[in-house]
Amino acid sequence: MNEALPPGSVIGILGGGQLGRMLALAAARLGLSCHIYDPAPAPPAAQVAAACTTADWEDAEALEAFARAVDVVTYEFENVPTAALDRIEAIRPIRPNRRALATSQDRLTEKAFLEDCGLAVAPHAAVSSRDELGAALEEIGTPSILKTRRLGYDGKGQARITDPARADAAWEAVSGAPSVLEGFVEFGAEVSVIGARGVDGQVACFDPGVNRHEDGILRTTTVPAGLPVALLTDAVLLTGKVLNALDYVGVIGVELFVTPGGLVVNEFAPRVHNSGHWTQTGCAICQFEQHVRAICGWPLGDGARHSDVVMENLIGADVDRVPELAASGAALHLYGKAEARPGRKMGHVNRITGPA
Amino acid sequence: MNEALPPGSVIGILGGGQLGRMLALAAARLGLSCHIYDPAPAPPAAQVAAACTTADWEDAEALEAFARAVDVVTYEFENVPTAALDRIEAIRPIRPNRRALATSQDRLTEKAFLEDCGLAVAPHAAVSSRDELGAALEEIGTPSILKTRRLGYDGKGQARITDPARADAAWEAVSGAPSVLEGFVEFGAEVSVIGARGVDGQVACFDPGVNRHEDGILRTTTVPAGLPVALLTDAVLLTGKVLNALDYVGVIGVELFVTPGGLVVNEFAPRVHNSGHWTQTGCAICQFEQHVRAICGWPLGDGARHSDVVMENLIGADVDRVPELAASGAALHLYGKAEARPGRKMGHVNRITGPA
Repeated sequence: MNEALPPGSVIGILGGGQLGRMLALAAARLGLSCHIYDPAPAPPAAQVAAACTTADWEDAEALEAFARAVDVVTYEFENVPTAALDRIEAIRPIRPNRRALATSQDRLTEKAFLEDCGLAVAPHAAVSSRDELGAALEEIGTPSILKTRRLGYDGKGQARITDPARADAAWEAVSGAPSVLEGFVEFGAEVSVIGARGVDGQVACFDPGVNRHEDGILRTTTVPAGLPVALLTDAVLLTGKVLNALDYVGVIGVELFVTPGGLVVNEFAPRVHNSGHWTQTGCAICQFEQHVRAICGWPLGDGARHSDVVMENLIGADVDRVPELAASGAALHLYGKAEARPGRKMGHVNRITGPA
Repeated sequence: MNEALPPGSVIGILGGGQLGRMLALAAARLGLSCHIYDPAPAPPAAQVAAACTTADWEDAEALEAFARAVDVVTYEFENVPTAALDRIEAIRPIRPNRRALATSQDRLTEKAFLEDCGLAVAPHAAVSSRDELGAALEEIGTPSILKTRRLGYDGKGQARITDPARADAAWEAVSGAPSVLEGFVEFGAEVSVIGARGVDGQVACFDPGVNRHEDGILRTTTVPAGLPVALLTDAVLLTGKVLNALDYVGVIGVELFVTPGGLVVNEFAPRVHNSGHWTQTGCAICQFEQHVRAICGWPLGDGARHSDVVMENLIGADVDRVPELAASGAALHLYGKAEARPGRKMGHVNRITGPA
């Protein structure tokens, strides 16, 4: 499938959360329809998609029927089980490709890949036993963070180590799973680049945004980032390097630390990314449409920024602010989730702060 | 229902064409879902709506079940049969209200209403018989246009009269239906204003755009309109007058002729309007979201224009230009229609031409 999928084609999306939902809305603008696959019934994306399969990741029959019903498959989260992907890929192409997915699924593989690209990453060491954790702590020092190589669905599996004597507790916190010990990176800012690469190798990046987190969850992304142009250009160029090295097709989100010694790559997500939501209001073509265009073999769209934007996530009880936010003049996005649990992303707000 | 409908509420939309589709996409952004009612199976809007009823306008049971399944009802075209509206309104509010709909459904009522508002309309006379046509021609003169008071679903029922001797042919062309003879208005430009009014009476208008037609179908809308500011201000003010006079809730499209003597109102459509599609790319809040906000009792959004835009309709075989347009850097919108018949609106393109 090297030609552009014509309007009327069907995109299969693994995962039906807010990212799948906004992909489906973008696909609809281009006359493409979406089929969601999600183990949970009635996921947010299903409300705006032409079809939805509710089945487990182990349901071979459902996976194969899903694959046959669509023209191309993409995903809204990177932890889709490998066996499920194998079944689907035997029938339809998966974009971004398996290598991008496999690389991002394993922190150690990811760091090795980024270093192979000539990019700076945090000092780190592989840890597969309690003994190796001791050796790694001697090499990397403290403060450092022990992280499981693979993420569970709940995003847990991290332990901060400020004192080598607390190594046992950290090893317990990751349940003895294969892990990476990462040295603490002193950074002044976190920047992310939302990049895209087409089937033909065309690359386009949105302007980098600066991120602010609270309690480990993205709170705001601001563009322009207010950082030196040379640094932002570096950020865009290294994103292009990653995209090309992976022979990537689709949108990627690359998170970078701005340190006194230059940019350090934190990680990348092989999908549309929360820090790219501002593009819905700041650009003629948003990250979701850009992803749809790329995976369907269409030319990439114009991601030029026409406005300065601050994106703010609405998390948990933030949703109670909706009446006030609706009246604030900002562009409001709600994900159609019925229950506002603490830490749950319920929506976001894009506020134009001026012309670009 | 004077309070704002909370996220999760359901909007019923009468008609499932492209306007209904784009309303459903805008509603989804706000966490609202849509239920489409359309006599035709699988209409474009159904692909992105949570529910769709396929039933005739005469199907009382289906209409009542639809009304009970939703929280508020709106429409994407103004020729919904009155009896259907009566059944629905007994159960749920219809917005914009019945008076707006009734006024716009009948050209004579519409002109009388506009004149009552103190606005200029084309010279015209009621024609309900062949004899009255003769008298009207003496009063209005030629060239003039005989138009049926009510539109059929096919948008036909017009005859241009350049010579009073051809009156018989014109009378036949409108099948002897109650009609209006309109004098020809010499105009330099056609402008339209997309206005909105909330449940609380708040009024907001988008910047007026200038329209170009080909073969009686809108071809392009351009903003800014490139006309004197005083004239555009008048256009916005008179739209506000119409909205208030009708106690209107929702988005309206008002078409105006720019004549040497000032603005003449051609007609208004009590719904989102093709000439407002540019707002999807030129404003943070588009006409579709503005309509959804209004009919759901939400505050109106910020319709300020951040960019200059040219909107071009894709009609019939224009859809063959999609590959080229997709690569043009413009924002493409396709309506999910399978068959490209001549004159059929298949999509549109919004091109940013500069900062506002």
